Amino acid sequence: MPASPEDSAQRHRISDTSVSLGERLHASRELSLTLARPLTDEDQTVQAMDDASPTKWHLAHTTWFYEAFVLRNHMPGYQPFSDRFEYCFNSYYETQGPRHPRAHRGLLTRPSAEEVRRYRSHVDEALMGLMSDEGSLAPEVKELIELGINHEQQHQELLLTDILSLFAAQPLRPAYQPLTLVTEANSLASETRWISFEGGIKEVGHDGQSFSYDNELPRHDELIRPFKLAHRCVSNSEWLEFIEDGGYVNPLLWLADGWGAVKSNGWQAPGYWEETADGWRQMTLHGLVPLNPAAPVSHVSYYEADAFARWAGKRLPSEFEWEHAAQTTDAANNPANTLGSGTLRPCPASADAPVDRVQQMMGDVWEWTGSAYLPYPGYRPPPGAVGEYNGKFMCSQHVLRGASCVTPDGHSRITYRNFFYPHQRWQFMGLRLAEDA
Amino acid sequence: MPASPEDSAQRHRISDTSVSLGERLHASRELSLTLARPLTDEDQTVQAMDDASPTKWHLAHTTWFYEAFVLRNHMPGYQPFSDRFEYCFNSYYETQGPRHPRAHRGLLTRPSAEEVRRYRSHVDEALMGLMSDEGSLAPEVKELIELGINHEQQHQELLLTDILSLFAAQPLRPAYQPLTLVTEANSLASETRWISFEGGIKEVGHDGQSFSYDNELPRHDELIRPFKLAHRCVSNSEWLEFIEDGGYVNPLLWLADGWGAVKSNGWQAPGYWEETADGWRQMTLHGLVPLNPAAPVSHVSYYEADAFARWAGKRLPSEFEWEHAAQTTDAANNPANTLGSGTLRPCPASADAPVDRVQQMMGDVWEWTGSAYLPYPGYRPPPGAVGEYNGKFMCSQHVLRGASCVTPDGHSRITYRNFFYPHQRWQFMGLRLAEDA
Amino acid sequence: MPASPEDSAQRHRISDTSVSLGERLHASRELSLTLARPLTDEDQTVQAMDDASPTKWHLAHTTWFYEAFVLRNHMPGYQPFSDRFEYCFNSYYETQGPRHPRAHRGLLTRPSAEEVRRYRSHVDEALMGLMSDEGSLAPEVKELIELGINHEQQHQELLLTDILSLFAAQPLRPAYQPLTLVTEANSLASETRWISFEGGIKEVGHDGQSFSYDNELPRHDELIRPFKLAHRCVSNSEWLEFIEDGGYVNPLLWLADGWGAVKSNGWQAPGYWEETADGWRQMTLHGLVPLNPAAPVSHVSYYEADAFARWAGKRLPSEFEWEHAAQTTDAANNPANTLGSGTLRPCPASADAPVDRVQQMMGDVWEWTGSAYLPYPGYRPPPGAVGEYNGKFMCSQHVLRGASCVTPDGHSRITYRNFFYPHQRWQFMGLRLAEDA
Amino acid sequence: MPASPEDSAQRHRISDTSVSLGERLHASRELSLTLARPLTDEDQTVQAMDDASPTKWHLAHTTWFYEAFVLRNHMPGYQPFSDRFEYCFNSYYETQGPRHPRAHRGLLTRPSAEEVRRYRSHVDEALMGLMSDEGSLAPEVKELIELGINHEQQHQELLLTDILSLFAAQPLRPAYQPLTLVTEANSLASETRWISFEGGIKEVGHDGQSFSYDNELPRHDELIRPFKLAHRCVSNSEWLEFIEDGGYVNPLLWLADGWGAVKSNGWQAPGYWEETADGWRQMTLHGLVPLNPAAPVSHVSYYEADAFARWAGKRLPSEFEWEHAAQTTDAANNPANTLGSGTLRPCPASADAPVDRVQQMMGDVWEWTGSAYLPYPGYRPPPGAVGEYNGKFMCSQHVLRGASCVTPDGHSRITYRNFFYPHQRWQFMGLRLAEDA
Repeated sequence: MPASPEDSAQRHRISDTSVSLGERLHASRELSLTLARPLTDEDQTVQAMDDASPTKWHLAHTTWFYEAFVLRNHMPGYQPFSDRFEYCFNSYYETQGPRHPRAHRGLLTRPSAEEVRRYRSHVDEALMGLMSDEGSLAPEVKELIELGINHEQQHQELLLTDILSLFAAQPLRPAYQPLTLVTEANSLASETRWISFEGGIKEVGHDGQSFSYDNELPRHDELIRPFKLAHRCVSNSEWLEFIEDGGYVNPLLWLADGWGAVKSNGWQAPGYWEETADGWRQMTLHGLVPLNPAAPVSHVSYYEADAFARWAGKRLPSEFEWEHAAQTTDAANNPANTLGSGTLRPCPASADAPVDRVQQMMGDVWEWTGSAYLPYPGYRPPPGAVGEYNGKFMCSQHVLRGASCVTPDGHSRITYRNFFYPHQRWQFMGLRLAEDA
Repeated sequence: MPASPEDSAQRHRISDTSVSLGERLHASRELSLTLARPLTDEDQTVQAMDDASPTKWHLAHTTWFYEAFVLRNHMPGYQPFSDRFEYCFNSYYETQGPRHPRAHRGLLTRPSAEEVRRYRSHVDEALMGLMSDEGSLAPEVKELIELGINHEQQHQELLLTDILSLFAAQPLRPAYQPLTLVTEANSLASETRWISFEGGIKEVGHDGQSFSYDNELPRHDELIRPFKLAHRCVSNSEWLEFIEDGGYVNPLLWLADGWGAVKSNGWQAPGYWEETADGWRQMTLHGLVPLNPAAPVSHVSYYEADAFARWAGKRLPSEFEWEHAAQTTDAANNPANTLGSGTLRPCPASADAPVDRVQQMMGDVWEWTGSAYLPYPGYRPPPGAVGEYNGKFMCSQHVLRGASCVTPDGHSRITYRNFFYPHQRWQFMGLRLAEDA
Repeated sequence: MPASPEDSAQRHRISDTSVSLGERLHASRELSLTLARPLTDEDQTVQAMDDASPTKWHLAHTTWFYEAFVLRNHMPGYQPFSDRFEYCFNSYYETQGPRHPRAHRGLLTRPSAEEVRRYRSHVDEALMGLMSDEGSLAPEVKELIELGINHEQQHQELLLTDILSLFAAQPLRPAYQPLTLVTEANSLASETRWISFEGGIKEVGHDGQSFSYDNELPRHDELIRPFKLAHRCVSNSEWLEFIEDGGYVNPLLWLADGWGAVKSNGWQAPGYWEETADGWRQMTLHGLVPLNPAAPVSHVSYYEADAFARWAGKRLPSEFEWEHAAQTTDAANNPANTLGSGTLRPCPASADAPVDRVQQMMGDVWEWTGSAYLPYPGYRPPPGAVGEYNGKFMCSQHVLRGASCVTPDGHSRITYRNFFYPHQRWQFMGLRLAEDA
Repeated sequence: MPASPEDSAQRHRISDTSVSLGERLHASRELSLTLARPLTDEDQTVQAMDDASPTKWHLAHTTWFYEAFVLRNHMPGYQPFSDRFEYCFNSYYETQGPRHPRAHRGLLTRPSAEEVRRYRSHVDEALMGLMSDEGSLAPEVKELIELGINHEQQHQELLLTDILSLFAAQPLRPAYQPLTLVTEANSLASETRWISFEGGIKEVGHDGQSFSYDNELPRHDELIRPFKLAHRCVSNSEWLEFIEDGGYVNPLLWLADGWGAVKSNGWQAPGYWEETADGWRQMTLHGLVPLNPAAPVSHVSYYEADAFARWAGKRLPSEFEWEHAAQTTDAANNPANTLGSGTLRPCPASADAPVDRVQQMMGDVWEWTGSAYLPYPGYRPPPGAVGEYNGKFMCSQHVLRGASCVTPDGHSRITYRNFFYPHQRWQFMGLRLAEDA
């Protein structure tokens, strides 16, 4: 999105923990508006499927979060913008009362996008007032604001993936951001190198010294067996081999539920792939473009990732193998492309990286792991309404690790646990192979 | 809608057949834009249910109609606005190729409402060029333009009923047009008078001397038995009696399919009625307002109309009884409120009308008849694509007669056959009782 | 079914009105058991689709009818067989209290088929007791018994069509009754002759002098225009021409709802047709047999019948045209094959019938008419529970006239109005073409 | 089921590994017939829901298993009973070709139950021939027979739970096996005692020395933290407290998907509970009986088990905690009631067991664990068709441990991994609480 150096610099500062909470809050609030700017008010109103939300709803819901949890409780004299928005923009907080059904978010032509922007201004002004004396803020308020920033960052990523789903459903296949420069090599990805890791009892999970979500806690021991991890993600050209080898027509490669999903959805390729007379095209935030063979495959469900791994004679890593490898190789300081890069789609792994290191861990695509999304030993959701955040989804989903090309800078951590149902694929989801050592 | 005398005068001229075809075309094209004006571009983009279409789609589809059937075939050198719109804005013409699914019309954020307005200008300009030498136009072209005007009038009514369905689905319950003056008496409707008609062989159907739809043809004989017709439509207060008498909980009053619809939809009152602590409210194009007991009941399905008639010990009239009564009493020159009146909801019957006449025949609400929507004897659909117009819906629907409070002036005829499925109720649909003489 | 002359003789007597009511009751009760005899208890328990009922349920429901309406009210001291059966075997009589859901009739493994047979014996014994002094029975009781006989005859036909739907859903494609003799010529049907009828005001409907259903009443005038009727039903070979000419792939031939049904059901041929390497086969009550080109087409929906007529440049007759033609040509005494013939599928029209007469009116297949199923002028349902019989289905269905190859002898009348939804085709349903004179 | 001492003795021998494979095969084949004996052929034909299969299908499918995997491949000259049964009775083996849809198993009235019994005899005779020289059998054949026995045991349990679902759907609520003796105390369960276990690296999984399923392999290390386990399962009376405390109306106790299931299914109590004027009743294989407060709760989904644990301030054990506790306390030799006991429902825990031991581990109810059903480290499905057995279900399900009151004797192991979707509850499923030490 950001084309100018200023934007890029600004965003970089978001992840810079030396800046103040207030500055980070401000930058985070601005980023949402920046992301919405290429969209018409009409684009911001519609949802293409129940899983996705309209841009306008993301903009309002992230604002409601501050109003409901910070301003109403911790800012004396705060005047809510509207009593009706509680109902419209609560996502799923049962403690906060009844709410508009998720599948009907796309019906909300009122309030208008313009009014939602005024809502944001109203709340932002109050927040900036609150932050003006940051030093005297109670720690719990600071924590709520930190949570609010992270919450909004999640919705920034969703805003983009949801817009992609909307634009892909349009007969006109519009581009969210035109490609200014087509510099992509049309070559294949580098050959996969297998990086070895020793087993043993390893510490995983967040240490609680800085911000994390509750589901990354507590830090604890896990028993890991020796394993190898591919140095990069599976590429589009490798996925084409899978297709050409009958990957989508051979039930023996698939989980039973996965095969059911293939049949009922008519899957024959990853999401947003379109076969044309001129070869495969992929609908992206830059519009409908030729498939890049060297780039990581994206928009594959867990079922597809699992089937691919079986076809390849490998497996998916566990979330703890992934985290251990990321620790070891300092993945957090070795980013692949995320939102700040300005390229809103996965890119090929760099060819000139150290040969003994895993690459692309923290960007391009979220990586499906073989781990079910379950609580860590000793996990406790925080008390109060914000406790309805991660714990209540701990069933029937799988963990994805890393980050994607549309993850806001400053939002990724090697302990971060993203999670989706095994049939979902509208996020930037890919995979990296593993095997026993 | 129109508040100013100018608007009203202009609309009046549409139905004045002394004005030229070109002037009527122009006025009709303008009216659609006038109707869309109170709406934001967001409002114009969304559809609240599969049966309804977005305003923007109505604006574009009525324009596509001229492009597909008039300009492409009959205007040499015409440059279509966009090759992609054929796919987006065809409604159901199989002869015109594949088309965007009806249930996904609300996903079309692109083209934007602004671009649709440019599309209209482009087509209107071409049409005005074509009409500049009206005298030399081939009769078939004139007929297509006449059809286009009537087609657009139908969509003008749908535009308003579809917006009502959208606004009723909004938590904020917005008003399409604020009520400027609340002059409605809160009294009951006048007592029903029963007007008698003799039986015999009667001519019905359109005589073909001026414009009509194909389904009104040919004029033919029908055998009618002596009958009586209520002088006015069933009122809201009468419907309240039906509710209070257990109308919605007694299966013996209902057709079997009707009872199934009551249970599966949870119907307990007409559409858009809401029971509040302060009594019944009704969602209207003027917003959520108190129910007017004297006004005709509206937004009832055929199932409900039929159940009410059974409860009342009466029956619905046949479409031919209705038409015969309308002929006899000169209903066409005795209008109830239609779109030009500026009141976008049904109004109570006038108390000082002649006592021996039926009232409210041509406005307020479409009236369900007991007649299935079937072809007249000798009916033939016109050749070519425009023949895919009325004939292919002649199954499983019922005929409604008259007109409603949002029917454009000049669009109603006593031979007009409107038709909907027996479960549908989002139009302004009501009923008038009949009985054997 | 009946292979022996005795059976045939006996059945013939059912329609002989000279025999006593008690004898007819007895014969009717026996016939149901005869029809169930080729079936295992397992076959009698299952339903293949919601529209169909298990044989056992038919056997029990027709028995419950006598218990609920005759014995409980009119036989002092009658002991009901079981208090639980009221719930199990009521079909749709709201006045008779709650009932087992239609779609779950196939779950009733208890009571067993054996117990249902005991239930029948128990009720039959009581009925025979009641009939022992037939002369002293109140007229209303006699009418209820007459209604019971006709009600059971309807279920006898359904029993067979429902078994066909069950057997067609079995991988083993069993035969209900093996074909003993394959004498069917493999030739084409005779060329269609068009029989002309004059128009005018004609009396239709039942005269009420003997038994009829309420929906055949009252006898009344209808205005009929001059028309022609095909002398026989449309044949399988003609339907094959329709298929080969793209009948199922050309949307312009179809009603909009019909085309929707073609797409959503994947229809490519009439029901129970299967294309094999050896040509078309048809699943029948005699098992899977080669399609007979000369026989009337069967198992077509209203949508298909309507599309065929349009393709053929003809139309379906109205129900009054059909009835008038049947009156004129003494159709009731000119039967085609019905249940007593022992051939449980439609047969080719006889080649040596009078050339100026319509044939096959009262057997082989029910004939779709273009008439919606609506009440006759002045129709009143009878009072009480039995009034919930025909009237509550008067919406969204079409009338079929005549009778089929599995209609019990004595059950057909030229005023008989059968009715089904336009998508249904599991009955023996075909068509005869008409055109304006 | 078994009423006589002989039956009981015979069944006991099945689990006695000193008896020969042939004898165990024979006993296993007989047990299925014994279990079907109280059922009519009609009962054996119907399925009450897609998840359940008809008894007849279980009897045939377990027979087909031997035909497809043992006799066709390993018995020269074997004549299959019917070529059509491959299609009818394959469950889900894609390698074995197309098959009858699961949801339509209840339509198979043919082959009849009687023919299925002949099918069993045919195959049993061949199997006994094969086993007559047991010593010379190839090891792989012995393994397949061992697998066949275990496979049939699984279906014996399903046969009973599926019949319970069928009988519960019958208005007559029949009993599969009448209660001969009502000796159940109506007292409460003993107070819960918490048994402590130390943490550390523990070996879990099957050692491969005797029969196990592939999903129990390989034996491997797991890191376990110190924990406590309740000495018995949660009881009905405790569940009543949960209900009375608003367990089913408080969304905060539930996983998001669980709350969705509560709302969409209308759950207000465990499966088969019915509230009557005389208090709670439970539909069981012994018919509709009063709820026993002291017995383990059964027929609860994972969602319900999880919500209960949260309400109780505890959690579910992991499958490894459960297995470790079972090892430690010699659970396998400390059985609760299983099929051989003759009581086909869960029973209260014995009051006079050692106080420092867990009870009821191997019977009464399967116990939900917090563990997702995933492959063990190094898991490999066996090659060939039988490899399509457990691996392809390793997604979105949860592991249950132990055994139930209808698990065949000899079928349970402390390494056994049962698995179901979190919404399923027609099995005998309950729970035992755990907490961190």
